[in-house]
Amino acid sequence: MKFDYPDDSIALHTDAYQLTMMQTYWQKGIANRHVVFEAFFRKMPFGNGYAVFAGLSHIIRYLNALHFSDSDIEYLKSTQQFDPEFIEYLRGFRFKGTLRSAVEGDLVYSHEPIIQVEGTLLECQLVETALLNIINYQIMIATKASRIKSIVGDQPVMEFGSRRAQEFDAAIWGTRAAYIGGLDATSNLRAGKLFGIPVSGTHAHALVQAYRNDYDAFKAYAQTHHDCVFLVDTFDTLKSGVPNAIKVADEFGDAINFQGVRIDSGDMAYLSKKVRQMLDEAGYPNAKIFASNNLDERTIMDLQRQGAKIDVWGIGTKLITSYDQPTLGAVYKMVSLEDDHGQMVDTIKLSNNAAKMSTPGKHQVWRITDRGSEKSEGDYVTLADEDPRQLDSLYMFDPNYPFLNKTVEDFIARPLLKDIFVDGQQVYQEPSMNEIRQARQRHLDRLWEEYKRNLNPEVYPVDLSQKCYDNKMKIIKDVKEYIKHLN
Amino acid sequence: MKFDYPDDSIALHTDAYQLTMMQTYWQKGIANRHVVFEAFFRKMPFGNGYAVFAGLSHIIRYLNALHFSDSDIEYLKSTQQFDPEFIEYLRGFRFKGTLRSAVEGDLVYSHEPIIQVEGTLLECQLVETALLNIINYQIMIATKASRIKSIVGDQPVMEFGSRRAQEFDAAIWGTRAAYIGGLDATSNLRAGKLFGIPVSGTHAHALVQAYRNDYDAFKAYAQTHHDCVFLVDTFDTLKSGVPNAIKVADEFGDAINFQGVRIDSGDMAYLSKKVRQMLDEAGYPNAKIFASNNLDERTIMDLQRQGAKIDVWGIGTKLITSYDQPTLGAVYKMVSLEDDHGQMVDTIKLSNNAAKMSTPGKHQVWRITDRGSEKSEGDYVTLADEDPRQLDSLYMFDPNYPFLNKTVEDFIARPLLKDIFVDGQQVYQEPSMNEIRQARQRHLDRLWEEYKRNLNPEVYPVDLSQKCYDNKMKIIKDVKEYIKHLN
Repeated sequence: MKFDYPDDSIALHTDAYQLTMMQTYWQKGIANRHVVFEAFFRKMPFGNGYAVFAGLSHIIRYLNALHFSDSDIEYLKSTQQFDPEFIEYLRGFRFKGTLRSAVEGDLVYSHEPIIQVEGTLLECQLVETALLNIINYQIMIATKASRIKSIVGDQPVMEFGSRRAQEFDAAIWGTRAAYIGGLDATSNLRAGKLFGIPVSGTHAHALVQAYRNDYDAFKAYAQTHHDCVFLVDTFDTLKSGVPNAIKVADEFGDAINFQGVRIDSGDMAYLSKKVRQMLDEAGYPNAKIFASNNLDERTIMDLQRQGAKIDVWGIGTKLITSYDQPTLGAVYKMVSLEDDHGQMVDTIKLSNNAAKMSTPGKHQVWRITDRGSEKSEGDYVTLADEDPRQLDSLYMFDPNYPFLNKTVEDFIARPLLKDIFVDGQQVYQEPSMNEIRQARQRHLDRLWEEYKRNLNPEVYPVDLSQKCYDNKMKIIKDVKEYIKHLN
Repeated sequence: MKFDYPDDSIALHTDAYQLTMMQTYWQKGIANRHVVFEAFFRKMPFGNGYAVFAGLSHIIRYLNALHFSDSDIEYLKSTQQFDPEFIEYLRGFRFKGTLRSAVEGDLVYSHEPIIQVEGTLLECQLVETALLNIINYQIMIATKASRIKSIVGDQPVMEFGSRRAQEFDAAIWGTRAAYIGGLDATSNLRAGKLFGIPVSGTHAHALVQAYRNDYDAFKAYAQTHHDCVFLVDTFDTLKSGVPNAIKVADEFGDAINFQGVRIDSGDMAYLSKKVRQMLDEAGYPNAKIFASNNLDERTIMDLQRQGAKIDVWGIGTKLITSYDQPTLGAVYKMVSLEDDHGQMVDTIKLSNNAAKMSTPGKHQVWRITDRGSEKSEGDYVTLADEDPRQLDSLYMFDPNYPFLNKTVEDFIARPLLKDIFVDGQQVYQEPSMNEIRQARQRHLDRLWEEYKRNLNPEVYPVDLSQKCYDNKMKIIKDVKEYIKHLN
C-alpha cells in the first residue's frame, strides 16, 4: 500500500493522548523514569477454556521498525497541539526497552500478564496502542481457529475469509493467527508468501458463468490444472453441478487428480449426503466434499450431528472477523514505576469492579504442570523476583475466592513470559510456523479435557502467589487511605 | 510496516482461486474477453434504513499500485500450483480496466450495484478479493458512525477505537470511514496525518498513576498543555478525580483552557449528573463532560433517556469493530461477458433464494428525487443503455412484489455509479474529506425521516426498470431450460 508520504512510518499508529502524556513526562523531567507496563485481558474469548496467544511476530516487526520519520515530525508540529522542542526530541527515538511476552502458540488465560514492557516512561507509553491493536485481534482468531479445529478433528480446514476481513491487515495477520490456531491452509496468496502458509483455492462461480455451463467450465479447468475440485452449485448442485463434475472426471480419468467437489450454498446436510451417494455410485469413493457457507464451530457441530458427509471445511466470515466477539478487550496497565529516589514502587488502577482492578508489581507467570500426569494444574502469577521452581510444594489459591485452594507437589513450573527484546535488542528468534503449531498442540495435550469443552468449560485456575496477593491488598489499602484523607 | 520482502506488493492480496481461474482463462485464450462484474450487498447493515458508502479512496490506491513484483512472481512459481509461463505473463500486468463506483459519502442500498468493474476477464477476476475486503468493512463503519451521529446530534463524537480494531489497517481506514460517516475527530495520529482528520486526545490513567494522585497529575498536565481535559476515574471519580480537577482549574485560572473532565468507567448516567453539579457549583458551567466506556448508539440513547449530562462522546470498540455485525457481506458477480462472436451476453448466478440471485446485465443506478420536495423517491436500477432523464414519468415497482408500484413525475434522476478509472486511467479526482462529509449530510437531508429511524426504518425502494426486470426473467428462464435439458 502506497500512501501519500514516501516516508510514512508506524510511529504515529498510536493514540494522540500517548503523545500528550509523553510531552508532560518530557517537560516535567520524568520521561526517562523506569517503568513496567503489563497487558492482560479480563474475559476468556468466546467463553472458551483457554486462549491461544498470537501476534508476537507483528509486535516484533513493529518494535524493530519504530521511529519517527521526517513527515511524522512535520505532521506533529503542524497540529500545533505539541511543544515543537519535544517533537524534535522524538526524531532520535528508538525503542530501547525490554519486552517479555507469552510466545505464539502458547495458551494464555484471563487475569494474567501476557505481555510486559519495561523501559522508560516515554517508550512504554508510546507502544501501548499498537501492541493492544495487534493482540486484541490475533488472539481472538487463533483461539477461534483452535475451537473450530477441535470440532473437525483430522479433517482439513481452510481459511477463506479475506474478502470479509476488516481491511487488508486483518486478512493477512488474521489468516496467520488462524494457522497458528490450527487451520491447515489459507486462500490468501500474500499471506502464503509472507508467512509460508500453505495456500489453497480452486475456482469460483465466475468460472462457470464464464463458460455458461458446468460441463464446459469443469472441462476447461481440467485442461489447465492437474488437481481439480469442482464448484457445483452455480446453477443446480444435484441436477447440473455434480453430474457434470462426474462426467468430466470420467472423461479425463488419470489425466487429472479429481479431488472432489465444493458446495457453497443450500442445505449442507442434505446436499452433502446426496452428493456423497452420487460420487460413490459413480465410482469416486475417495473424492472429497468441500463445504463453505458461513460456517463456524457451531454450524459444523450441527452438521456433524445430522450426519453431513463433509470432508474438507472452508471457513470465512465467522472466523476472520471473530464474528461472535470481535475483540479481546485486552488492556495495558502500569504496574510499577521508579519514584523520586530511584526506587521502583508498584502502582494500581482501582475500580469498583474486582475484575477491572489491575494487579500491582512486575510479574512472571508460571505454568504449573503435574510431573506425573503431565497435565497443567493452573497458572501461578508471582512477583518477578519469586521462583517457584525452588519450592517443594506450592500452595495455590483463587485470589477472588481464597477458600478455593490446593497444594501441589512434584510439579514443573514453566515461565510463560519470555525475553523478546532486552534493552532494545531483539534476543528472541522467531520459531517457524510449524514449530509454533506444534507448540500449540503440545500445550493443548497438557490441558485436561474439561478445559477444552467448546461450551461452558471449567475455569482454569490463575492464582496469585501469597506475596503478590499481599502486595495487591496492601496497595489497595494505601490508595483507600489516600482517598479517605482527601475528604 | 516492513515485511521480509523489500518489494512486497498488494497484487497477491487476493484469493488463490482468482489466480487458478486466471490461468484457465489465459491458457484457454479467453483472458482478454470483455466482462462486467458488479458488487452489491443483500442485507442493510444493522437493519439501518440506508448505508453510507466508503472505501473508494483505498480502492483507488490499490488499483493504482497493482502490479506483480519480482518476489510475487517468484513466490507464485515456488508454490508449483501454477503454469510458470502464465506467471511470467503476469509480470507486465497492470489494471487497464474501467471502474465505476458510488462515491464516498453517498448513500447506497441493498440489491443495487455499488461498484462496477469492466475490462478483461483476467483483470476483473484478480481484483475481486481486495475490493470486497475494503468495502465490506468501510461501509459498515461509515454507516455505524452515521447511526451514532444521528443520535447525538450536534454533540461532538470522537473515534477512540484503535487499540480494539482488527489490526492496523482497520484502525486507520476504519477511523477514516467513521469520519465520513459523521464522527468529528480521531485519536489515531497516523490517520490524522494520512487523511487530515482532526486528532483528539488528552491523557490516560497512566498519567495519574505516574504521579500517584490526581492532583499532581492534573497539575503536571496543566503545566505542560494549554487545553486541559482531566480524566477523573483513576481512583475515585467523585471523591478524588473531580475535586482535584476543580482545584487545579482554580489554581491555574486563565493560564489554561479548562475544557472539562472525562469519565471512562462507572455508571455514566449517575456520575455525569453528579459531576455536572460539582462543576456548576464550582463555577465551571461551560466545562464539558466527556464520556467513553463501551458506548454505541443504543447505550447513548439510553443515557440520554436517563438525563445523563454528557457533552462529548468517545466511541471505541463498538464502532471500530462494527461489533453488532462485523461485515457487510457484499459480493461481486459477473453480470455480462463477451461471447465467441464478440457479443456481450448477460450472465446470472442462480439460487433457490430470491435475494441471493444476481441481476444480469451491466447497470446504472439512478437516484430518483422529487423536484418539489427534493426528497428521494427511491433508486431505479436500469441497464446501462437506459437513461430515465429522458422520460417525463417513471413507473417504479418492487421487483420482488410487482404489485407494490408507483408512477413518479417531475423528478430528478442522478446516476450513482461514476467513472473512477477509464481504461486503467484514474479520471476521478478525490474530493477533500470535508467535501465528502458535506455530501453525506446533503444526501441524508434528502432522505425522508422514516428511512432514518435507528430501529425498524421503512424499506427504501430499490426498483428495477422494466427492461432490466424482463432481462432477468428471460435469463432465469433460459438457465432453467438448460438445466431441464440436462436430464
